[in-house]
Amino acid sequence: MSPDRIGIIGLGIMGKPMAFNLLKANYKLGLYARRYSSLHSFESHDVEIFKSPAELAQHCTITITMVEDSPDVAEIVIGSNGIIHGANRKHLVIDMSTISPEVTRQLAQRLSDQNVDMLDAPVSGGEQGAIDGKLSIMVGGNANVFDRALPVFQCLGKNIIHVGAHGAGQVAKACNQILVAQTISAVAEAFLLAKSSGVDPSKVRDALLGGFASSKILEVHGKRMLDDNYQPGFKAKLHNKDMRIALSSAVENKISLPGAKLVARYLQEVVASGDGDLDSAAIAKIIFGEVK
Amino acid sequence: MSPDRIGIIGLGIMGKPMAFNLLKANYKLGLYARRYSSLHSFESHDVEIFKSPAELAQHCTITITMVEDSPDVAEIVIGSNGIIHGANRKHLVIDMSTISPEVTRQLAQRLSDQNVDMLDAPVSGGEQGAIDGKLSIMVGGNANVFDRALPVFQCLGKNIIHVGAHGAGQVAKACNQILVAQTISAVAEAFLLAKSSGVDPSKVRDALLGGFASSKILEVHGKRMLDDNYQPGFKAKLHNKDMRIALSSAVENKISLPGAKLVARYLQEVVASGDGDLDSAAIAKIIFGEVK
Repeated sequence: MSPDRIGIIGLGIMGKPMAFNLLKANYKLGLYARRYSSLHSFESHDVEIFKSPAELAQHCTITITMVEDSPDVAEIVIGSNGIIHGANRKHLVIDMSTISPEVTRQLAQRLSDQNVDMLDAPVSGGEQGAIDGKLSIMVGGNANVFDRALPVFQCLGKNIIHVGAHGAGQVAKACNQILVAQTISAVAEAFLLAKSSGVDPSKVRDALLGGFASSKILEVHGKRMLDDNYQPGFKAKLHNKDMRIALSSAVENKISLPGAKLVARYLQEVVASGDGDLDSAAIAKIIFGEVK
Repeated sequence: MSPDRIGIIGLGIMGKPMAFNLLKANYKLGLYARRYSSLHSFESHDVEIFKSPAELAQHCTITITMVEDSPDVAEIVIGSNGIIHGANRKHLVIDMSTISPEVTRQLAQRLSDQNVDMLDAPVSGGEQGAIDGKLSIMVGGNANVFDRALPVFQCLGKNIIHVGAHGAGQVAKACNQILVAQTISAVAEAFLLAKSSGVDPSKVRDALLGGFASSKILEVHGKRMLDDNYQPGFKAKLHNKDMRIALSSAVENKISLPGAKLVARYLQEVVASGDGDLDSAAIAKIIFGEVK
């Protein structure tokens, strides 16, 4: 039994199962939600509900945020009712959203000025990983703070890596997202070459899974393409947002990522065509010419 | 003990260990080599040496070819001293080189006109896979001919897939090569983003190997990039040749593969810079800006 009460802000597809895994591990929870309906599932559990991030932070020792984009996290952390206005010394903010490394560093600095700690800890593994407590967690921040948070992370994930300083977790996540998107695109090109040559792409997938071309994406997303079933998984519109984060970082760092740029364009086309709620394997629909 | 004597043409990095695996399985071998020096390793073994592909084909029931490019295979099969001039009815030519699907289909047709069978059976797995008898083998041709060749393939590889008709093995190999090349490029872009953000790419690799971004390439080629050690493996100049085959097929099939095209350009730059004998993971040197 831990003495920590953990605040959670963001009870969506990912945040909700993560909260239940913390309850299962006997943590006391504090919740804040913009939409009260998000709290229904917790009615019969021993949780405290707060009216603002500031109030929540006042009554918790750790706050986990799991929301959509950089502005959401900024509002929760430093907005007018933000965590920063309620947090005591040594409060720890763990942002598990996928946001900009640069914004992360700015927020960590603002919190640090008030003696509040922060970690960026974006995840990979999707809803199923969150439910199973098997997320990959990529962490940025100070080592001693990472050590303090580790028991919490261990309730949520399996592959938990302290990547580096503030923002390094978000950088790793950006790397993850550009690699995943490009592998999806490469698998789709391979299947297109097979189909256009009159060869069954499912046989090609079988042949390739044994060798150097094998990947989690060929296995999982390749199957989605063959089945023409793009139920997410991970939504194209979120992957699109993540590509924008990665390419903004590239611009800030004065590097060029032509492969990532190409695939980001595909994701934008997927979203523009109205398929943003499909899995990001729907990049294949662009490559196969199924979306004009 | 099999009644077949198997002819082998092409005793290079791949062909030689494959020949020894067939000897180990008690097959009798017939060899032809353009350079006599290639035969030295076989001096103390029960092999017969022939003076031309035609003569070899006359005394063997199966001929395996494992050479570099489409013109080499065409010369061996239908050249003036080619297999076609010596092969008896029901002789089987198994081309395990990586060549053009279109040339493969033409050669299979020419052989078929003389009642000689052919399979295209390119491999993946590299020198180590050939030594260990653990190659992935992607086979094109008739099903009954595939069945006849299967015991031979089982001495050489593990993941043996009958992909489809003549040329389908080569199409699968082309798919393999464009997927591998693009994944190498995507891993290099991810590492560049990490480095330019001041984040250790080896930590990023650790974090990504657990999740959806994980692949054989991130594991093996990613390690080569981190170690700045590009000993092959599989040489960039051969990968460059294979990309040309794949992109020619794309043109013939009237499809566009922008990702493959981008990476083919990198491979050409690697070769042009004099690094063609390095592993194709040296694509990273272009992406990291180490080659101008």
